[in-house]
Amino acid sequence: MSSAWLLPEHIADVLPSGARHIEALRRGLLDGAERYGFELVIPPLLEHIESLLSGTGHELDLKTFKLVDQSSGRTLGLRADSTPQVARIDAHILNREGVVRLCYCGPVLHTRASGSNASREPLQFGAEIYGHAGLEADLEIQDLALESLRIAQLDDVALDLADARIVRGIVAGVPVDVKALDAVYAALAAKDVALLRELTAGFPADSRRALLALVGLYGGVDVIDAAQRELPDRPLIGAALDDLRRLADHAAATHPEVAVGFDLADLSGYAYYSGPRFAVYATGASDAVARGGRYDEVGAIFGRNRPAVGFSLDVKQLAALSPPPSSPDVIRAPRSDDPALRRTVRELRAGGAVIVTDFENGAASGRGAWRRELVADAGRWSLREC
Amino acid sequence: MSSAWLLPEHIADVLPSGARHIEALRRGLLDGAERYGFELVIPPLLEHIESLLSGTGHELDLKTFKLVDQSSGRTLGLRADSTPQVARIDAHILNREGVVRLCYCGPVLHTRASGSNASREPLQFGAEIYGHAGLEADLEIQDLALESLRIAQLDDVALDLADARIVRGIVAGVPVDVKALDAVYAALAAKDVALLRELTAGFPADSRRALLALVGLYGGVDVIDAAQRELPDRPLIGAALDDLRRLADHAAATHPEVAVGFDLADLSGYAYYSGPRFAVYATGASDAVARGGRYDEVGAIFGRNRPAVGFSLDVKQLAALSPPPSSPDVIRAPRSDDPALRRTVRELRAGGAVIVTDFENGAASGRGAWRRELVADAGRWSLREC
Repeated sequence: MSSAWLLPEHIADVLPSGARHIEALRRGLLDGAERYGFELVIPPLLEHIESLLSGTGHELDLKTFKLVDQSSGRTLGLRADSTPQVARIDAHILNREGVVRLCYCGPVLHTRASGSNASREPLQFGAEIYGHAGLEADLEIQDLALESLRIAQLDDVALDLADARIVRGIVAGVPVDVKALDAVYAALAAKDVALLRELTAGFPADSRRALLALVGLYGGVDVIDAAQRELPDRPLIGAALDDLRRLADHAAATHPEVAVGFDLADLSGYAYYSGPRFAVYATGASDAVARGGRYDEVGAIFGRNRPAVGFSLDVKQLAALSPPPSSPDVIRAPRSDDPALRRTVRELRAGGAVIVTDFENGAASGRGAWRRELVADAGRWSLREC
Repeated sequence: MSSAWLLPEHIADVLPSGARHIEALRRGLLDGAERYGFELVIPPLLEHIESLLSGTGHELDLKTFKLVDQSSGRTLGLRADSTPQVARIDAHILNREGVVRLCYCGPVLHTRASGSNASREPLQFGAEIYGHAGLEADLEIQDLALESLRIAQLDDVALDLADARIVRGIVAGVPVDVKALDAVYAALAAKDVALLRELTAGFPADSRRALLALVGLYGGVDVIDAAQRELPDRPLIGAALDDLRRLADHAAATHPEVAVGFDLADLSGYAYYSGPRFAVYATGASDAVARGGRYDEVGAIFGRNRPAVGFSLDVKQLAALSPPPSSPDVIRAPRSDDPALRRTVRELRAGGAVIVTDFENGAASGRGAWRRELVADAGRWSLREC
C-alpha cells in the first residue's frame, strides 16, 4: 500500500459494519430527541472564523482548522464544536420568544485529537434548550442525555455532577488576580493540597478553608450533606447544592440503573459553564461519553443573552461501546429479465427486504451473505433457504 | 445583525423544517440503497490531497479547499466529491473479490458554487457498484437512481442517456493532438456546427461526417435508430448504441412515468466516464438532480483497476424539489413531578409520540405547535385536544 493512500493520523474510513451501526445509533438518538420536542438544525461545516470562535476561548481556537475563502478573501473555520453555531441560530436566525429546543448531529473536525484513541472527526450529536432559566431545563437535558445512552444500550453508566457556581461562590470577593486564580483552579483540578495551601495563603480564612475542603468533596450523595456542613453559607453555593441534590434525585428516579456521583472540585469546562454540569461515564471508555450543563452566557456574543443548557456526545465513540445492530437478512435474486421476478423483488423490497441481484449467478460475490434466495417454481418466484 | 455573523456566500444554516425534510429524505435514500444490497461507508471529510485528487483532473482540484495538517505539515483537502474516496475504499481497504456495492451520504465542500442557487456544502448521496463489467450493473444503478427520485416524490422526471464510447469511437485513429480534440469537444458540446466544420476540415471523411451528425442526435428513442444509420459501423459505437437501447427499454419497463431521452453529443463528465452515463432532470431544477454512469478507470490509480458504475445526487437540492414530510403531532405535558405523569410520558414516547414539557405552564412557548395535551383526571393522565 503506497503511503500516499494512508489517511492522516486520527482520521479513518468507517467501513460497512461500523457505518451501519453509526447510522442506526444516529437515527435512534435523533428520534429520541424529537420525542422530547427537540427540533433538528443543520449548521454549516464552514463559517467565518469570527463567528465560529466568538466568546469560545483559546482552546477551541487551537482545535479549529482555518482556511481562506477564495470568493471573499476572508478566513473560514471548520467547526470544531456545533454548540456556538446552534446558539447563533437561536439568537439570530430563529429569534423566537420563549423556550426553544434544538438538536443537531454532524461531523466536527479537530486539528488535534483529544486523546490517543480519539478521532479528529467526531460525529457530534447534541441537544440544547434556550430561554428557560429554571432547573426544569437542566433536568430535561440530563434526562435526554441518560436516555441517549440507554438508546445506545451502554452498560454501567455513571453520572458525575458538579456546579460551576460553587467555586465562583467561594472565591467571590477574594482580592486576587486572574492569573493567581487560574493557578488555584489548576491545583484544585489536580487535587494538589500542598500547592493549594501555598497558593491560598493570603486568602480570607473561610474561602481558603472551603477551597481545601473541596478537594475531598467527591463521591456519592453524602457529598452534598458534607458540602452543606463544610462550605460557607452563601447564596450561590446554597443554590448550587440544592440544584445538585434535585438533579441527583431526579436521575435516581428516572434512571435507577445509573450510578450518581459528585466531584465538586472538578473544573473541566469551568470557563464555559455557568451552573450545574455533568459528565457521563461508561465501562470501556477512558473519557466521558457525554458532557453537558448550563452555559447561560453562550448567546450573549450574538446579541441575545438567553439562558441555555445542553449536552453533546460523539456518536462514533458511542458506537464503539454499544452493541451493534443485527445484520440484515439478505436475499439473493438471480440475474433474469423475467417481469414476474422484477415484480416479486419490488414487492419484497417495498416491505423492507434486502435483495441482492447476483450478477455472477452463483459464483462467489462481494456480499455473499445471503441466507435465502428467490427461485422460480412453475412460473412463480418464491423464497427458499440457501 | 452584525455582518460578522453573516455566513459565507452559498453557505447556509438549515433550519428546523428544512432539516427535518432533509433527514427524512436521507433516511429514505439510504434505506432504498440498503434494500438493493448497497453497504454504507463513511469516508472522512479530510484526506491528504494526493489521495483525494488522484486521477480526478483539474476541475475537482479547483473545487477542493486545502489546508495544512499541523501534526504532519502535509496538505489536506476537504472532499469535494466522495466518489474517489469510495473507489479508494473498494480498491485498498475492502479489497474483496467479486461484486461490491457501496453507498454513502455526507457533506462535501466546494470552493465555488456550481450554480447561482447551488450550495457550497451539498449533502452528497451516492451508490457505486465495483467489480462487474456487464450492463446489469449499469441497469441496477439506473434503477436505483430513478427509485431514489421516486422516494423523493419528484414530479416530471426525465432521464437523459449518453455514452462516452460514441465520441471515442468516432475519433479513434484520427491523427490529431489533444488540444485540437478538446476544441472539437467544446464545439460539439456547444452544438456549434460552423466551428465544428472548420475544426474537422482535416479529419477523415467518415469521422467528420459522424461528428457533424452527432449534433443532431438528440431526442427520443428514434435517436438510436438514426445513430445506427448515420454513425460509422465500429465495434465501440455499436456496443454503445446497443447498451443505450437496453438502458432505455429497461427504464421504460421499470419506471414508465419517466421520460427517456438521448443527447449523443453531450460531453459533460467526458473525462470521467468510460461508458453509458445518465443525467436525471426534474421540474423546478435548472440543473440535473442526479448524475451517474460507468467509470471503469476510477480505481486504477489506487492500484486496482476494477469496473465501476455509480451515481450521486445532492440531498439538499432534492429536498428543495420534494414535498415536505408532515409535521409531527406534538403533545403538551405540564410541568409536574407526579410520577404517574412521568410514566405516562415515557410510555407515549416509547410509542413514538412527541411530548414537549411546557416549562412556562400555559404561557406562549417556542414550539407552541401542540394540538393535544396531557391532563390529570381523577389521578390518571389522559390526552385531550387543546
